Amino acid sequence: MKILIPNTIELPVTADVETVVYDIDAEIPAEHRDAEALVVWHNSSSWLREAARALPRLCLVQALASGADAVLNAGFGADVRICSGRSLHDGPVAEHALTLILSAVRRLDRLRDAQREHVWDEAFNEEQSAAPTRALYTLSGARVTIWGFGSIASTLAPFLTALGAEVQGIARTAGERSGYRVHSDADAAAVLADTDVLVSILPATDETADLFDAELFLALKPGAVFVNVGRGVTVDEAALIAALESGQLRAAAIDVAKSEPLPASDVVWDAPNLLITPHIAGNRPVGAARLVNQNVTRLLAGDDLLNQVHP
Amino acid sequence: MKILIPNTIELPVTADVETVVYDIDAEIPAEHRDAEALVVWHNSSSWLREAARALPRLCLVQALASGADAVLNAGFGADVRICSGRSLHDGPVAEHALTLILSAVRRLDRLRDAQREHVWDEAFNEEQSAAPTRALYTLSGARVTIWGFGSIASTLAPFLTALGAEVQGIARTAGERSGYRVHSDADAAAVLADTDVLVSILPATDETADLFDAELFLALKPGAVFVNVGRGVTVDEAALIAALESGQLRAAAIDVAKSEPLPASDVVWDAPNLLITPHIAGNRPVGAARLVNQNVTRLLAGDDLLNQVHP
Repeated sequence: MKILIPNTIELPVTADVETVVYDIDAEIPAEHRDAEALVVWHNSSSWLREAARALPRLCLVQALASGADAVLNAGFGADVRICSGRSLHDGPVAEHALTLILSAVRRLDRLRDAQREHVWDEAFNEEQSAAPTRALYTLSGARVTIWGFGSIASTLAPFLTALGAEVQGIARTAGERSGYRVHSDADAAAVLADTDVLVSILPATDETADLFDAELFLALKPGAVFVNVGRGVTVDEAALIAALESGQLRAAAIDVAKSEPLPASDVVWDAPNLLITPHIAGNRPVGAARLVNQNVTRLLAGDDLLNQVHP
Repeated sequence: MKILIPNTIELPVTADVETVVYDIDAEIPAEHRDAEALVVWHNSSSWLREAARALPRLCLVQALASGADAVLNAGFGADVRICSGRSLHDGPVAEHALTLILSAVRRLDRLRDAQREHVWDEAFNEEQSAAPTRALYTLSGARVTIWGFGSIASTLAPFLTALGAEVQGIARTAGERSGYRVHSDADAAAVLADTDVLVSILPATDETADLFDAELFLALKPGAVFVNVGRGVTVDEAALIAALESGQLRAAAIDVAKSEPLPASDVVWDAPNLLITPHIAGNRPVGAARLVNQNVTRLLAGDDLLNQVHP
């Protein structure tokens, strides 16, 4: 079996196959159009459409991105198996989500700004110690709600629990996942009213577009914190800014924006008590070589594949 | 038994004793000088010295601070038992330490500054994904060394391990603590040479003054990250600034400074790639009421006390 490996990632393949490294910005060389497996990472949609036409013997496309939408829409044959890189991103995204949650609760945005002004923020110390406000500055005792409770949430939640938070989820269907109670989104209002920290890990779908709007922010416990490591299109950014300005949201941290890269002229940059990072939670798969080797070995053995999303 | 509770913290006492709330800025009322137990939180040294003279029936002083130096030096009778609040601060300090470690590794200082300039930092995304630099932007696979391996380190270390870091300690004596390998400070050089992230939780003592100096920063693996949630006097700040300027330290985050509050004119404010927070890791005991109730109950029963530091 011949497998094509992109030049965008180091990927030592140990499975018993012929490995060819290809340039994701070039045509696939004629002598390698007999490849049966293809790994893709940062390939363009047009390249993928061309590959779907050019590789008649293909059995497997292994994406390394968390979602495989571009691959699914590229026109690969109905019998070509397509696998996502979903599990590769759970750890990195959970790490960045934890960073943003802690930074929002501990208000590193405010403290970094104070540092730039050479101000030792004594008021912070008083607020985090005073009985009426101390609960705001710690995850210990905080009620954290994770909206979108998949594998990233299952990786993230135990850290929050270990820090003393009470964690629950919201998803399309209620139930228990990884030991955490997950509510149906139909019951969101009651959950939000008692939420100190709301974390979104939602994908971009028709149902999630502008889900986080003025009404939703108002449904939250006043002074809650909002963290978004999902997708920017899920947030009505004018409503986010208004909720921060009114204090309905005490602070927020977002890794994603509606328009990326966020234009320099965008008003969201300067919203009060908002920390923005430039969509960096993912884009750094961990264990990609292991997944590729596992799936190639499984394919050769006729076993079920990991992360298969098609057919 | 009569117990005096300071007006600086809400402390519901459930043990079978008489509770009196007192003002830490006022004289102890004459009718309460028969108290046998005293809880102190944010009391001044002069108040403590006066209390040592004014409370002849005292058997127990329960401090809520991590250290009980001020109480130990106040002149209480040789038989008065003094207990610290050490265990109350493990969780809060570990929470802030984790926040600073993640923020330094994920470079929230740089990203917050970019946000203020309305810059979507695309270079960050490339660096955290590129093979030569990707390891710098995650705790997964990082070697973290905690210098000062007491109860805070034992609380912090499991979070780092769960994030994929290899954690080891340095302390006065080598051994294994809470399942982690701790090296003697005599062996520090070899440990530092292989350290990606150095975390100090050292107290201020004669031995730790200016421990983190130019020589020590040079002994670290080039490009290491330094985080200090211990005490500011342990750091030669000119050496810290030089190590950041040269790139020997890739980034640092400090919660403590040599001079606190840090004067507006201090040069450390503007050191590159340095995040400063205003000594906020502690000062927020968790579980104080439980500790007071436990120690009062133990005192009444004649049992050993928790966190006893004298006699």
